[in-house]
Amino acid sequence: MIINKVRDTIKRHNLLNDGDKVILGLSGGPDSVCLLHILNYLKDEFNIKIYAAHLNHKIRGIEAQKDAMYAAKICDIMGIICFIRAIDVPKYCEENNLSLEEGARILRYNMFFEIKEKINADKIAIAHNINDQAETVLMRMMRGTGLQGLKGIEYKRDDGIIRPLLDVSREEIEKYCEENNLNPRIDHTNLEDIYVRNKIRLKLIPYMSENFNPNLKESIARMANLLREDSDYIEEQANSAFEQVCEKKSQNIISLDIDKFLKFHKAIKNRIIRKSIDFILGDIKGIEQKHIEDVISLFFESKTDTRIDLPRGIRVYKKNRNIIFTNEELVEKKINYNYKLPKSGYIKVKELNAIVESKILSVKEMKNITHDKYTKCFDADKVCGDLLIRNRKNGDRIKILGLGGSKKIKDLFIDLKIPREDRDKIPILVDEKGIIWVIGYRMSEDYKIDKGTKNILKVSFKLL
Amino acid sequence: MIINKVRDTIKRHNLLNDGDKVILGLSGGPDSVCLLHILNYLKDEFNIKIYAAHLNHKIRGIEAQKDAMYAAKICDIMGIICFIRAIDVPKYCEENNLSLEEGARILRYNMFFEIKEKINADKIAIAHNINDQAETVLMRMMRGTGLQGLKGIEYKRDDGIIRPLLDVSREEIEKYCEENNLNPRIDHTNLEDIYVRNKIRLKLIPYMSENFNPNLKESIARMANLLREDSDYIEEQANSAFEQVCEKKSQNIISLDIDKFLKFHKAIKNRIIRKSIDFILGDIKGIEQKHIEDVISLFFESKTDTRIDLPRGIRVYKKNRNIIFTNEELVEKKINYNYKLPKSGYIKVKELNAIVESKILSVKEMKNITHDKYTKCFDADKVCGDLLIRNRKNGDRIKILGLGGSKKIKDLFIDLKIPREDRDKIPILVDEKGIIWVIGYRMSEDYKIDKGTKNILKVSFKLL
Repeated sequence: MIINKVRDTIKRHNLLNDGDKVILGLSGGPDSVCLLHILNYLKDEFNIKIYAAHLNHKIRGIEAQKDAMYAAKICDIMGIICFIRAIDVPKYCEENNLSLEEGARILRYNMFFEIKEKINADKIAIAHNINDQAETVLMRMMRGTGLQGLKGIEYKRDDGIIRPLLDVSREEIEKYCEENNLNPRIDHTNLEDIYVRNKIRLKLIPYMSENFNPNLKESIARMANLLREDSDYIEEQANSAFEQVCEKKSQNIISLDIDKFLKFHKAIKNRIIRKSIDFILGDIKGIEQKHIEDVISLFFESKTDTRIDLPRGIRVYKKNRNIIFTNEELVEKKINYNYKLPKSGYIKVKELNAIVESKILSVKEMKNITHDKYTKCFDADKVCGDLLIRNRKNGDRIKILGLGGSKKIKDLFIDLKIPREDRDKIPILVDEKGIIWVIGYRMSEDYKIDKGTKNILKVSFKLL
Repeated sequence: MIINKVRDTIKRHNLLNDGDKVILGLSGGPDSVCLLHILNYLKDEFNIKIYAAHLNHKIRGIEAQKDAMYAAKICDIMGIICFIRAIDVPKYCEENNLSLEEGARILRYNMFFEIKEKINADKIAIAHNINDQAETVLMRMMRGTGLQGLKGIEYKRDDGIIRPLLDVSREEIEKYCEENNLNPRIDHTNLEDIYVRNKIRLKLIPYMSENFNPNLKESIARMANLLREDSDYIEEQANSAFEQVCEKKSQNIISLDIDKFLKFHKAIKNRIIRKSIDFILGDIKGIEQKHIEDVISLFFESKTDTRIDLPRGIRVYKKNRNIIFTNEELVEKKINYNYKLPKSGYIKVKELNAIVESKILSVKEMKNITHDKYTKCFDADKVCGDLLIRNRKNGDRIKILGLGGSKKIKDLFIDLKIPREDRDKIPILVDEKGIIWVIGYRMSEDYKIDKGTKNILKVSFKLL
């Protein structure tokens, strides 16, 4: 019965391939001993080779020693190679400021992956069962989680971890061990989250099963399986959306396109934000849904230049049509340039990666010129001294063509809603007297062509 | 505090529009009385008009009477119009074989929607709170549910139902009633799922809150909100996928395109199947995930002609590249036709909605004819007697061109993998001696053009 269940699980989730080398995590407790016995029974059927790995965690001295001896013995009987490593887990945890539970898990999994690499194995089999599944899902639900957490423990992970016992209950496992005289060690340390998990195991689940649903474990496992599929699907969609929305990624900075972002569904928006933060921090601990909501509001914000701060030093800037995440100070490099422009000729403004060209023409020649945002004509004889192309300076003013009086360039930029960090990128054409043209935006009244104009200065600007 | 919370909920979920007429479901218990009081306070701010509706369910005689009187009185004090209707719920439930809980809910909601229509109202406000939310989600989880169930009670539904108290706890509501001397009626009947819900309320949630998370209700509500977004998103995607995959819908039959179906993610596949069954049955009660899995396997099935049965009389057929759901016998209408084809001329085969054309040509004229699957030439002088176009008959045989010996048409159809129900749709050209051409598939050796051929019979087939 239990063997059939495990066989079904292996087949349905495609846990084993022909010829796989499998390392089994063997604590010596009922779950892992049962799995070892069953995999050993099925090894010819699936054509796999089994190894076991045991960590002597040195947590309770002689008991830990006995666990290791038991693991060695049972493998010896079955003719299975068993890797045993002894590590002073308490010392490691103290040095790294970890709970015993966390530390032991890290060291155990490190060991599995090291052995996997060493013997070139394909899979690492862990003996989690359906009770563990129900406990995990309930624990996460009570702590507050989203879809990601509710999907529970996975049958198979990309890194080679497989869990063939995940459809089997603890009761079935214990019965199997008894029937097969396996005499597993009772793990008194039970390192996993001992207090919380034991309460869930010994009190909550029995109460729920008795009062609400005798098949509670199975119902929760089925729910977790359905939610896993849903979660995988949304993650797949969110990954693709993230790549579309993401304009720029480098070590500590990520930039999202606002317009593209806004087209997605709220469920995807949420995940794009999480992925962005995860990209910067490596995880999203300490980031709550409230923070995600704040960032999403920023996308709808009408101001061009805003910033919010999230926990763990994440800053989120709104700049033009982008939202930028970073954990560094976002320093805009100060641009400064000042080029002499010949009356006829051209220069390159390398700060803007652009070319400015000038030409002196007769009034007649002007007829054929197409004027646009970046090509303008002026009265050449009104120009005083050298022509310069430069960025704005404090106190700059212009007599805007068509309007009376003069206006501060600073105010002009504010009116035009040009974000602060872009203002130095706007080139200005000046002579000795003042501003001739704020390139791309406004011309000066003082240099305009009129009836008396004899010579034309044509200037054009082109981004390379 | 509680008023601010309700205001936030209303704004965040856009529960009210300027000028809305709102009907409040008023039982007389703390929740609905509190909501009435708060909405009455906020009515000018949101510019809404409030009505109340109370159902005297006649379940506990004098107590139900007192509830109704209390509802009338409190509305009178606040100057709110209150619709009160008395219905013999126990009698209705007996007649319709419903539990008191179900019956009362149906009648209550019927009443709300009737009044809504009558006074042309926009919204129906129901006083569900965050405790109800946590209880509902836990109940569904313990019974086994998917994403759809875990998303819990909704703030706002398309039919006008709104739940402005959904972020407020029962404790806050009771405190508010006390502070405002509202003296609500304590609902001793508490019709909703009394035993299960009371156990969740009085035992399970307190135990969980004490032992695992003091903010359990809030965590579960937050989870439900996140899952609601995820669920909405997947449903949206699944609806669009369903429309793409669905080839044909009529009253009791739905046909899905296998190739299109297989391109979707498992999470979407699941939902397409559920939607198909829901289309036939109106709901999917009694349909379990196991059944969905069985149907999905059918899509991968290599046999062309299979069927599985689901509960409630649903039959699922695999026919060619389609999966068909129906709760009727899938009867293939027997097609029978037999047309005389002139040597030069044409006939219409109305059973196939097609035209067959024939012509006698000289050998020289044949040069210009393009032969294809549906246009063939034969030796006209080898034809004996009348030409007929008909469907297959028992015992039909053909001497296939290029192969020795004769073959049963039945075996030919099997070889060609033509599904049983399509076999009568394949027209056959015969003369008095036998089969000349299985149109679209094979020609007979006996009528082929050879060196001695003088006259050509050209036949072509065209679907209209």
